[in-house]
Amino acid sequence: MIVVLTGGTGGAKFVDGLRRLVPPEELTVIVNTGDDHEWWGLYVSPDVDSITYVLADILSSERGWGVRGDTFHCLQAMKDLGEPAWFSVGDRDLATHLLRTKLLSKGQTLSDATSYIAEKLGVRSRILPMSEMRVETRIDTPAGDLSFEEYFVKRWYQDPVNSVRFAGASEAEPAPEVLEAIASAQAVLIAPSNPVTSIGPILAVPGICGALETTQAKVVAVSPIIGNAAVSGPAANLMIAQGLQVSIAGIAEAYRDFLDVLIADDSDSASAQSLSSGGLQVHCTNILMRSSDDKTRIARAALTLACPEILAESAMGNQ
Amino acid sequence: MIVVLTGGTGGAKFVDGLRRLVPPEELTVIVNTGDDHEWWGLYVSPDVDSITYVLADILSSERGWGVRGDTFHCLQAMKDLGEPAWFSVGDRDLATHLLRTKLLSKGQTLSDATSYIAEKLGVRSRILPMSEMRVETRIDTPAGDLSFEEYFVKRWYQDPVNSVRFAGASEAEPAPEVLEAIASAQAVLIAPSNPVTSIGPILAVPGICGALETTQAKVVAVSPIIGNAAVSGPAANLMIAQGLQVSIAGIAEAYRDFLDVLIADDSDSASAQSLSSGGLQVHCTNILMRSSDDKTRIARAALTLACPEILAESAMGNQ
Repeated sequence: MIVVLTGGTGGAKFVDGLRRLVPPEELTVIVNTGDDHEWWGLYVSPDVDSITYVLADILSSERGWGVRGDTFHCLQAMKDLGEPAWFSVGDRDLATHLLRTKLLSKGQTLSDATSYIAEKLGVRSRILPMSEMRVETRIDTPAGDLSFEEYFVKRWYQDPVNSVRFAGASEAEPAPEVLEAIASAQAVLIAPSNPVTSIGPILAVPGICGALETTQAKVVAVSPIIGNAAVSGPAANLMIAQGLQVSIAGIAEAYRDFLDVLIADDSDSASAQSLSSGGLQVHCTNILMRSSDDKTRIARAALTLACPEILAESAMGNQ
Repeated sequence: MIVVLTGGTGGAKFVDGLRRLVPPEELTVIVNTGDDHEWWGLYVSPDVDSITYVLADILSSERGWGVRGDTFHCLQAMKDLGEPAWFSVGDRDLATHLLRTKLLSKGQTLSDATSYIAEKLGVRSRILPMSEMRVETRIDTPAGDLSFEEYFVKRWYQDPVNSVRFAGASEAEPAPEVLEAIASAQAVLIAPSNPVTSIGPILAVPGICGALETTQAKVVAVSPIIGNAAVSGPAANLMIAQGLQVSIAGIAEAYRDFLDVLIADDSDSASAQSLSSGGLQVHCTNILMRSSDDKTRIARAALTLACPEILAESAMGNQ
């Protein structure tokens, strides 16, 4: 079993590569839920949705979120009714939020609702929210204490960041199967997601870091940073706020307690050498994921470094 | 002030005619909520929506319900997720249900939510749900006890009807302003709606029949029946189940406690004469509402019979 920790658009791209290499039943994706929020009275779980959609092969690759070819008529109608419209929910995407909210209101857990929706969409891999308890990423800025979606989507991540916290994390527990999945994995992969607000919330759930430290599997991360900048999104500012260097050294630092191998960009080979001399295995390649081929190539690199037998075992991996 | 009691597609057509004749501020519409139901976890009020949309000039005239030009992508996505899809909710229409559900969950009453949504859509007439308490039309059939939408939409009103009841009616109260609106009206119009399941629930709310009996205004109804058949929908079977003749005599009987004038079709002139000799004023005209002109003509006939001064006062009425 391959276990992936993920969040954000970079994470979805990486999982898109993995699903082309690994039989679906052998893939478990542990997903950030720190961005979850209520929208129009519905429970929205952006990262869970993106992973569900990518595994169902309906993710919009143009946008990186939401359903391919979706329309936004309900959003426009909500706008016409004077409701907030800064968080774009497509008409097809809305069905997921409606169904999840209905299932939760009937007493299902977030894990159950996630599995139910994934199964209905034909997903055969396992998608696990990091926790069934509410852990909320809060971004403290001069403009106030913002939810991640307010910071990221509503305000275009333009605010200076004082600090980041994960409200509720200390009382949270990992969702069922999360710790066992990590403990029994053949490989654990950290997607090229924002280390602070995509992977950070997962690591903030008590027990998950420990499981990553003690698992027998190799833990391989793909860097979301090239040089001194994020491949996309607000990772740089957020890393600075968390006292991390914006570089592959900062990524190595964020994952220092459990990381075995870091995959970095070719252009970072100098920094890679310095990290290697410090004892971390660093593999350099072109890590930009622009095409499907890129995604598959990087996923294959991660699998090869983590557990080459998996690719050998898998007929799909030999394609 | 003109007060209209209404429900269903015939009611929306009649209100469409009235809005072309009467200044919006002078129109109060008391609407059936017996069809209200939960759908995808949202509170849907089909008749309130139709009246809101017709007064906002966004009702689909082809369908007679929902928003003009609406799409159904969320509905298809819900179907793909294995959810029930027999009740057609358009993508724009969905915004209304989302907003109403959110307002109700925040503690607003159905009246407040109705006014809020109507105002946002530019409606200047007053729309009053008959009650803020749940009164549910239940249709007893050999196939079981059905909600109105199950009977009407899901099962295409094909089931024989044993009886109709309005669950919760005896404990319900009229919504605020309903009784005062009837008491102080210059004219009370009963739309050509199904007398059993559109007007019946309104009359079942304690106090409303009494207000209709004691109001100084003339009460004028437009028949939804021509000959021995309903102009549309399941009224005939429902009237039989309630012990009413399927004819204008049955309509007169349903409204006997308060009706002053009945507008019937030209083809019912013989029955009209017999009702007239029994003391009811009956006015015959072509009551089919196919075009906008038809709707205006019938609305004008009703206003003329109820309170001709209103049309004289209104500049719009003289157009």
